[in-house]
Amino acid sequence: MKTPALAVDVAGGPFVPTTLDRREPRGDDVQIDIAFTGICHSDLHRVQGDWDNGVFPMVPGHEISGVVGAVGEDVSAYRVGDRVGVGVMVDSCGTCEHCVGHQQQFCVDGVVETYNSRAYDGSLTYGGYSRSIVVREPFVHRIPDGIELSGAAPLLCAGITVYSPLRRWGPVAGRKVAVVGIGGLGHLAVRMAAAMGAEVTALSRGGEKRADARRLGAVDHLATEGPSGLGGSRNRFDLMLNTVSAPLDMDPYLAALRPGGVLVNIGAPGVPLSCDPFSLIAGNRAIAGSMIGGSAETKEMLRFCAENDISTEVEVVDAAEIEWAYRRVRDGDARYRLVIDATTIGT
Amino acid sequence: MKTPALAVDVAGGPFVPTTLDRREPRGDDVQIDIAFTGICHSDLHRVQGDWDNGVFPMVPGHEISGVVGAVGEDVSAYRVGDRVGVGVMVDSCGTCEHCVGHQQQFCVDGVVETYNSRAYDGSLTYGGYSRSIVVREPFVHRIPDGIELSGAAPLLCAGITVYSPLRRWGPVAGRKVAVVGIGGLGHLAVRMAAAMGAEVTALSRGGEKRADARRLGAVDHLATEGPSGLGGSRNRFDLMLNTVSAPLDMDPYLAALRPGGVLVNIGAPGVPLSCDPFSLIAGNRAIAGSMIGGSAETKEMLRFCAENDISTEVEVVDAAEIEWAYRRVRDGDARYRLVIDATTIGT
Repeated sequence: MKTPALAVDVAGGPFVPTTLDRREPRGDDVQIDIAFTGICHSDLHRVQGDWDNGVFPMVPGHEISGVVGAVGEDVSAYRVGDRVGVGVMVDSCGTCEHCVGHQQQFCVDGVVETYNSRAYDGSLTYGGYSRSIVVREPFVHRIPDGIELSGAAPLLCAGITVYSPLRRWGPVAGRKVAVVGIGGLGHLAVRMAAAMGAEVTALSRGGEKRADARRLGAVDHLATEGPSGLGGSRNRFDLMLNTVSAPLDMDPYLAALRPGGVLVNIGAPGVPLSCDPFSLIAGNRAIAGSMIGGSAETKEMLRFCAENDISTEVEVVDAAEIEWAYRRVRDGDARYRLVIDATTIGT
Repeated sequence: MKTPALAVDVAGGPFVPTTLDRREPRGDDVQIDIAFTGICHSDLHRVQGDWDNGVFPMVPGHEISGVVGAVGEDVSAYRVGDRVGVGVMVDSCGTCEHCVGHQQQFCVDGVVETYNSRAYDGSLTYGGYSRSIVVREPFVHRIPDGIELSGAAPLLCAGITVYSPLRRWGPVAGRKVAVVGIGGLGHLAVRMAAAMGAEVTALSRGGEKRADARRLGAVDHLATEGPSGLGGSRNRFDLMLNTVSAPLDMDPYLAALRPGGVLVNIGAPGVPLSCDPFSLIAGNRAIAGSMIGGSAETKEMLRFCAENDISTEVEVVDAAEIEWAYRRVRDGDARYRLVIDATTIGT
């Protein structure tokens, strides 16, 4: 099955139109006519060759929404026409303890990612910057009726990435949660934490997102590069989600945590994390990392979003606008996620 | 009340005999005839002036055991002759949320430490390298009958320092716990974790403590500077307690944690902690700090030790041997804690 796609031929190169050959659906495969694909910040790193395992040509995209176009004969949960999504993972061994525990991202054999990954049949995976994709049923997620397909796509990566640590380090109801960085990840973290009953404070460098933060559900906003910075917020937060990819001086952020507080780092700076050991010892504090979420948790997150009327704030771009869209993501100019209208690919 | 003591007059100077003037017991005070005082690694840092808030002359010592010599009129829990201990804390505000929650080490007004600390009446505190001390009842702990006073003293700091994170990040029963560094803290961590039902692996640089580690309750021992090092231990441990004060390359230790695993740092290196952010993200791992434990938890720890026949392995030294004892602690030569026979002070 031929499908048009957007590829980058060499690290740092421009996007060029290409054609992918998707496999015919096997027994438990779902073929999806892609409607929207989010532009994740990790896509930028990948196509630029910032991470060392890039294989080119590369077709990025792991925030996918669309409609089922065909199903294999063993598929039971989906029918043609169903609204579905695909995130970062498309396969795993299915039998190791982590797969059995629905934490496929930690599969002992290595999870197969949606693009730039080697599938178990040896083929290379190509992502959602295309018109169609074929994915095994366990890695397909139903998109609840209440959520638009455009806003749903980024929930499959950005959404689960913030939902999972809010659950693991919660319950956050009635507690003080700080969200550092109000972008694709951060704006969803503010919405979800607020919907979970937390008292949310949004932190960003300047004051220009203050009104937006309140609209998204934050009760307060701190401009970390403003006059008071973090100075007035010692021992204040129970949980902090750092969604910023740029390196941060961790110590003042840790000092803003209450005793026992946890700072979860989901941004991925290219430099080592560093802090004074006493920033952790004095206050029983912790720095944690978090990597997307498993399949069951992704389904739970989608239900939670539907029940709480949460979606991604997106701006839809055409395939022809991809280079302009990338510049805007690189400049931190997206409010708050750019998604590609996949039906414009190859037209 | 005059009492003989050992003081250091200037940072880095030798110990000299001195006489302290302890207050007469107030209403809720307990006067303790000190039997033993442990030499904690933090005492070395303090008397050397390694930390920036040293006040001299200094009388260290915050691992104290002894017998009640007198009580104030409002004391209800202790009588003359009772076996008791004192740890790192001797006072706190008593009314803030952390004090009310029995986590006095995080007192909003600042906990008063056993030495080198400013008491609420403005006086400076002097520690257990002395024959007598006067402490408010809430910060005195009964030593259960089954525990020798010599082995009990280090439980009040080293013991609670490892017990608290084993509880907070547990339950550890049936789980794989690694203890890095087999010294004063580490040997107690091995014993306690094993008694809690964990499968304990001890990690130290060389192989010379292997037999000791097994005797203490570890099922395995890894020599981190041996041929295989940590290489064969990826994704292995649920919880790791790092008791080493020297800086460690954190990444191989984090890689030895299973998904969701936590490395608790209770050693206090003088340099920043640093790790690759992906060491935390890939595996939902965390680095935590931990600072002693609260008063209720200290009492719980002492009961746990009595029930499980756990005490510190100590070597008793006389006051006259203090400089020799300090050299041995500095050289990592203690097996596993040196305690001063306080009755030899001033003789």
